[in-house]
Amino acid sequence: MKSNKAEWIWYFGDYELVQLNHCLTSRYEGDVFIPPFWRMDSPYANVKFVKEFSLSTPEEISVYANGKFNVIIDRIEAPANIPLRNFCGKVLLGAGNYRMTVSVYNESGLPALFVDGKTLKSDETFLVTCNDFGYVHAGCAGLTDPLSPPSYFRFCLEEISYEVLERGKGSMLVDCGAEMMAKLRFNGASSGTVHIYYGESEIEARAKGECELTDTLDLALHTETLIAKACRYILLECDSEEALGRLKIFREYNPTRSRSAFRCSDERVDRIYSVARDTLALNTREFYLDGLKRDRWVWAGDAYQCYLMSYYSFFDRKTVERTMIALAGKKPVSTFINHIMDYSFLWIISLWDYYQYIGDVRFLERMLPIAEAHIQFAMTRRNADGLLEGDPCDWVFLDWAHLDNRGEVAAEQILFWKSLDVMGKLCELFHRDGKKYFAYRDEVKEALFRLLWDKERGVFYHTRIDGKPHPEIKKHAHIFALLFGLLEGEQIKAAERVLTSADIEAIVTPYMRLYELEALCKIGERDYVLNEIRSYWGGMLDEGATSFWEFYDPAEKGNEKYAMYGRPFGKSLCHAWGAGPLYLLGRYFAGLEPAEPGYATFRMKPYMGDLDWLECTLPAGDGKVEISLTRDHVRVYSDKKSGTLLLDGKCFALSGGYDRMEDGCYVFDIAAGNVREAGLKRLGGKEE
Amino acid sequence: MKSNKAEWIWYFGDYELVQLNHCLTSRYEGDVFIPPFWRMDSPYANVKFVKEFSLSTPEEISVYANGKFNVIIDRIEAPANIPLRNFCGKVLLGAGNYRMTVSVYNESGLPALFVDGKTLKSDETFLVTCNDFGYVHAGCAGLTDPLSPPSYFRFCLEEISYEVLERGKGSMLVDCGAEMMAKLRFNGASSGTVHIYYGESEIEARAKGECELTDTLDLALHTETLIAKACRYILLECDSEEALGRLKIFREYNPTRSRSAFRCSDERVDRIYSVARDTLALNTREFYLDGLKRDRWVWAGDAYQCYLMSYYSFFDRKTVERTMIALAGKKPVSTFINHIMDYSFLWIISLWDYYQYIGDVRFLERMLPIAEAHIQFAMTRRNADGLLEGDPCDWVFLDWAHLDNRGEVAAEQILFWKSLDVMGKLCELFHRDGKKYFAYRDEVKEALFRLLWDKERGVFYHTRIDGKPHPEIKKHAHIFALLFGLLEGEQIKAAERVLTSADIEAIVTPYMRLYELEALCKIGERDYVLNEIRSYWGGMLDEGATSFWEFYDPAEKGNEKYAMYGRPFGKSLCHAWGAGPLYLLGRYFAGLEPAEPGYATFRMKPYMGDLDWLECTLPAGDGKVEISLTRDHVRVYSDKKSGTLLLDGKCFALSGGYDRMEDGCYVFDIAAGNVREAGLKRLGGKEE
Repeated sequence: MKSNKAEWIWYFGDYELVQLNHCLTSRYEGDVFIPPFWRMDSPYANVKFVKEFSLSTPEEISVYANGKFNVIIDRIEAPANIPLRNFCGKVLLGAGNYRMTVSVYNESGLPALFVDGKTLKSDETFLVTCNDFGYVHAGCAGLTDPLSPPSYFRFCLEEISYEVLERGKGSMLVDCGAEMMAKLRFNGASSGTVHIYYGESEIEARAKGECELTDTLDLALHTETLIAKACRYILLECDSEEALGRLKIFREYNPTRSRSAFRCSDERVDRIYSVARDTLALNTREFYLDGLKRDRWVWAGDAYQCYLMSYYSFFDRKTVERTMIALAGKKPVSTFINHIMDYSFLWIISLWDYYQYIGDVRFLERMLPIAEAHIQFAMTRRNADGLLEGDPCDWVFLDWAHLDNRGEVAAEQILFWKSLDVMGKLCELFHRDGKKYFAYRDEVKEALFRLLWDKERGVFYHTRIDGKPHPEIKKHAHIFALLFGLLEGEQIKAAERVLTSADIEAIVTPYMRLYELEALCKIGERDYVLNEIRSYWGGMLDEGATSFWEFYDPAEKGNEKYAMYGRPFGKSLCHAWGAGPLYLLGRYFAGLEPAEPGYATFRMKPYMGDLDWLECTLPAGDGKVEISLTRDHVRVYSDKKSGTLLLDGKCFALSGGYDRMEDGCYVFDIAAGNVREAGLKRLGGKEE
Repeated sequence: MKSNKAEWIWYFGDYELVQLNHCLTSRYEGDVFIPPFWRMDSPYANVKFVKEFSLSTPEEISVYANGKFNVIIDRIEAPANIPLRNFCGKVLLGAGNYRMTVSVYNESGLPALFVDGKTLKSDETFLVTCNDFGYVHAGCAGLTDPLSPPSYFRFCLEEISYEVLERGKGSMLVDCGAEMMAKLRFNGASSGTVHIYYGESEIEARAKGECELTDTLDLALHTETLIAKACRYILLECDSEEALGRLKIFREYNPTRSRSAFRCSDERVDRIYSVARDTLALNTREFYLDGLKRDRWVWAGDAYQCYLMSYYSFFDRKTVERTMIALAGKKPVSTFINHIMDYSFLWIISLWDYYQYIGDVRFLERMLPIAEAHIQFAMTRRNADGLLEGDPCDWVFLDWAHLDNRGEVAAEQILFWKSLDVMGKLCELFHRDGKKYFAYRDEVKEALFRLLWDKERGVFYHTRIDGKPHPEIKKHAHIFALLFGLLEGEQIKAAERVLTSADIEAIVTPYMRLYELEALCKIGERDYVLNEIRSYWGGMLDEGATSFWEFYDPAEKGNEKYAMYGRPFGKSLCHAWGAGPLYLLGRYFAGLEPAEPGYATFRMKPYMGDLDWLECTLPAGDGKVEISLTRDHVRVYSDKKSGTLLLDGKCFALSGGYDRMEDGCYVFDIAAGNVREAGLKRLGGKEE
């Protein structure tokens, strides 16, 4: 919805980059500042805005800029190209056709412009250049106050009540009740030094020398912590008892609203869904963070999963777009996103999901040039065999696992293949030639099967180093191959055997588990998946989790479960990629997905597995779809979108009430605003 | 000379970039801020310094950073890679082998580091990365105060006495006596508003609405102008008579020391040399500016000429290097330097001159990667015929003249040809493969003569547009072809005819005149050149110039001579490229040049033309060479460098006192520290 107010505008993407750089430099370990270890972009300091407009009656135009600036207003039929002298912020223009050019320079903040007249108002229709002689439509984010130029993201603060677990001389241990980003205030305190030890677990807060996050406040100078930090428990030590008594704790958050509900006959699954939703909400800051505590950075792979989760819960389009824009960075592209090869590809693939779920083609069109630049950059890593190989300055990550990622890693080729497919389709969407991407895609596939597919065993080698296939078999390539539909017939069976083999290293990150379980869903293994959700995510609940973790190995018990990266509390206990069940349950059990791009229509094909009943509300664009499914009844309602409900004939028997049969499914046409209900009988069959 | 003090260090090139961006955004027209209209680079905000070192005894190391930072100090044999916690600025280390890593982040200033111990001191031996996984040696500039981190360039200020030409009610017109960058102060004034109108000419200062530079000071807020501005005359209007009486004027300057002297029998030539030297000195700021007043930017073409002039006057290596570094910009290169095609090439060609005159191969080695990036960028403008053609976003400039620079401009191919030659030679200097550049060079030459050389007329077409040669002939291609030795035999004669033809548009900028006259010097037309110096630069003196101009058309008389760019005072009357005689007189009349790179030895071959006598001192590296030459005597002295003096046998007759004859020249071997003198007789012959 376009407001009729003028907005602050800037070079498209630079507002997000300012937020990103601020976010990426807000990480601490103890009192130690930890900046990113990959190359960061900066906003353009020197930009120029241009707008052509017509006035039918005289109009007074106000111009505000964030930076040093000048203003040229030319009659289009007689341009003079001379900046206004003695400009005082306003100009009165008679009726006519104009071209306005405003140059803004700012080397320490975001160069931005605000233009306000009766009819002329700064918005995305203004063009902007970084003086490379190319123009793009300006960016904006709904900032309509001319006296508040764009700055850092504004979070909400809410005072919380905390429980004092222990109070000693000069020390206090408090429990905030749940994981949060906490800011501490000591209003009115005038002296004393307070040492603050944050913990996701109580034992971490108590382990002063080893807890991941600390702060020290000299109360004579500051009575508030500068940056909100992740914790549930806080140990405070202070030489002023009086100051300790003044402690107030505030939860800092991005106010997101869940648009989903999930209840079923298994309370453990419900609890998993609920904790997953809390985990995603906590990691939804100005961007999707990977984790609240230790890392708190923005990673394209983690974010890729957050977008999918968000489409089945918060449907938080603004955070999705903000994260995508920030991660894209600037042209010319000189590194993979986060310097990780696979993350660049996941960023590109996410554009296609965005098209399906959000469907704003104008946004996608704006992303297309930078997406092309990322693909072109990836092409620089192609070797003589047409396969991608990481340079020493690239991180070929894939997963925290025992992987030898030198050489031509099969999973990277598959991600590249899928990215090329997406690029070709995006080009076609905008009537540009996508053929070259399809041609590259097919070349990659050919080389992949020629050089990295072991025909005898019917599996992918994990990698090929210096022309020699590495004999070890890993699950990763098979997961992505199934996920993106690269395999056919017997190849699928072979890949499934790899995924379910106990002899091949198990996946232990929730991150790769999401891909793994989705791949299994795609080949009809939802029963297995549901049980994995129960045991793996449920296992974390059994360990006391109130949010899901960065890494979970069921074998680790006791305090060792908090350790990672060689540090006793290095593991993040609130990690976005831990929230995968949000997506799995919504997409493969409630079974909702867009039938046409942008959720123009939906398709819902629920799967119950061993559940007795399921009651679910999910977002579909600006609408919602509700389903209630029991052993003998189904009820569906969609408020704004039309679509179809499909019940698989192997799982359900219906005697009527549906519209037709298709491919062995009972099909109901769902019209927006109307409830559809039917009686049914559950069968024992398993869906393919 | 390396000081033994610790220095502030940074990512190589970023200090210069900070200065450059500050300089480029200090331009005003009237009260209007004028930013550059091409893409600017920013310093890296996020950098990491690394240094390995050994201590034989315990040492306390102090660490200062400009920005947020962390410090890792590992024993090399047992690295832990953990930043120091509770770091208070100092660390005491025992004897041993260490690797120190300091990450510094600064998004609004220059990330910089200062490390000081008894033996460990931050300097160029520290490595630094912008986190692209490549390391370069750090940059430094002799800043040794840990409490003064690098910031903007510090100029000197000197109070000057001014003459009050007119004093009216609330107004005052003053004459500073000479062109300068002036800062105005009204110390002690507490109220009033002063309007300031600057003029290079008196008539400009009086033309309040049309003068190029103005300021307005609200004395209640500021009693000093923020930015020094170019002027000789200043008109002030103020509602406080008392404030006007407080005016102090300061000359802001970079203290440069001339190392040359030039006197000859023609006082007009002496005066030209002296005004040229003043012109260059005034334009020597943090960088070589193009002009003091209107533009005050840094342009690679203008700077190219300044380097040459400096080698024959101030020999200001620091400003040469600072300007070269700043103009180079950052990788990846996405535009020509100043977005001008020819300027990128002149920047590359200047490296070879630097090698000859300064000869610091370490500096050149640091420039090589960015030079390669600029050449690679230029290759993106090669068309199917192997010729360069500007994109719409490139500026194919060459000169302010009536040029149609669309298509394949011949002069640009010649500059490219020369740049490729320089690149090949630079690569060979560092034992890298230069062959590919030589191969490209030869391809360019072949295509140039095949497609842009009119065999019938024996001249270059100026350009070829859409495959069709443009019939018009311009001097420019012929100038560069002669200058860089592209032509042979009859081609040279043909080019000379173009240069001396009255039917071809005359060169009217001092900029292109320098290339033109140097080209003529190279083909034995020094008599013509000396007369051109007298008439063209002397013509400006006749018009009252106290510094040389941006543009001089002898036909323009009266006030029209101040006009340019459609503005009555748009012309810069103190423009660096006006100072060309500095170079021409030193290089082609005193006749000094390096015989080996870095002035290891020199070669001096003076030419008198119609001059009776010549007395000249010129810098040669850290030394100087003096020559005195009359109708019957020559005296040469070099304090630090050895070399040879050559007197052409067509111009001089000697009966003895020289060491040998070579190619028709009397040769004197000059040993450092010894005077050589000889009697001679001047002949009427003309040197080739």
